[in-house]
Amino acid sequence: MKALGRHFILELSHCSSEVLCSLTKVREYIVEAAKRANAHVLKVTFHKFSPHGISGVVVIAESHLSIHTWPEEGYAAVDIYTCGDTTTPETACEYLAQMFEAKNVKLTVVNRGVKNGNGSFSHVVSNSSQLCLDSGQNLAEVPRRRHAVLRSA
Amino acid sequence: MKALGRHFILELSHCSSEVLCSLTKVREYIVEAAKRANAHVLKVTFHKFSPHGISGVVVIAESHLSIHTWPEEGYAAVDIYTCGDTTTPETACEYLAQMFEAKNVKLTVVNRGVKNGNGSFSHVVSNSSQLCLDSGQNLAEVPRRRHAVLRSA
Repeated sequence: MKALGRHFILELSHCSSEVLCSLTKVREYIVEAAKRANAHVLKVTFHKFSPHGISGVVVIAESHLSIHTWPEEGYAAVDIYTCGDTTTPETACEYLAQMFEAKNVKLTVVNRGVKNGNGSFSHVVSNSSQLCLDSGQNLAEVPRRRHAVLRSA
Repeated sequence: MKALGRHFILELSHCSSEVLCSLTKVREYIVEAAKRANAHVLKVTFHKFSPHGISGVVVIAESHLSIHTWPEEGYAAVDIYTCGDTTTPETACEYLAQMFEAKNVKLTVVNRGVKNGNGSFSHVVSNSSQLCLDSGQNLAEVPRRRHAVLRSA
């Protein structure tokens, strides 16, 4: 099945609330995650909520990364959507889980831009995993795959 | 099932390539879609690729909207992720399908931030539809629901 892109939907739980509160750290880690996934960063925009919580997005040549944090819940909702054969979003997921000190991870991968017979596009959930990182499971267990068309920036 | 947010994953097919090429129009429509969904716009960032294609994100108080366009395919990949009881992302989906002149729509709704018994968070696909808008189907057929916690900007 050929897809234009892959969308990683990631819930990070039991994270460090101190990290999730820090605009500087959250921004730094998301931008670094993009780089480690071999993506090309184009735009970076973040917002800090009152009294806490951060939303941010990094637009990359290969699509985007986003994060929304709930420090009071030790929780972050992350999306990593990439096109192209050169990116490794799995690397970004592993890096973010480590930097946010997540103990539990829910990851679902959706293949986006899957062409139907009539020329329209669909998407397909390719796999979904809930992992307890503190009991020895790790994100490297999630099957790896690469995909399709990179646009030039 | 209580969820912190809902994530609408939307593929718009057989759209107007002229609209998908226009940075001005794509930006205007995404920002307007956010407003029509009763979301509060905080940040707007867009990038135009060469020779064509646009990526853009609107950070809202309730999370974000994103779009990536492939004018050569008449295709746009959209995400609308909202928290709070006051937003109507369905309205944004309907508006975007109309403005991009989409003839076919694939929509999947994922409930994000669903709390497990052990305090970790998960996500659950709540429904998925592929609709041919030019054969009389429409996005109003997709079941509507509202959710959870709004953070103050």
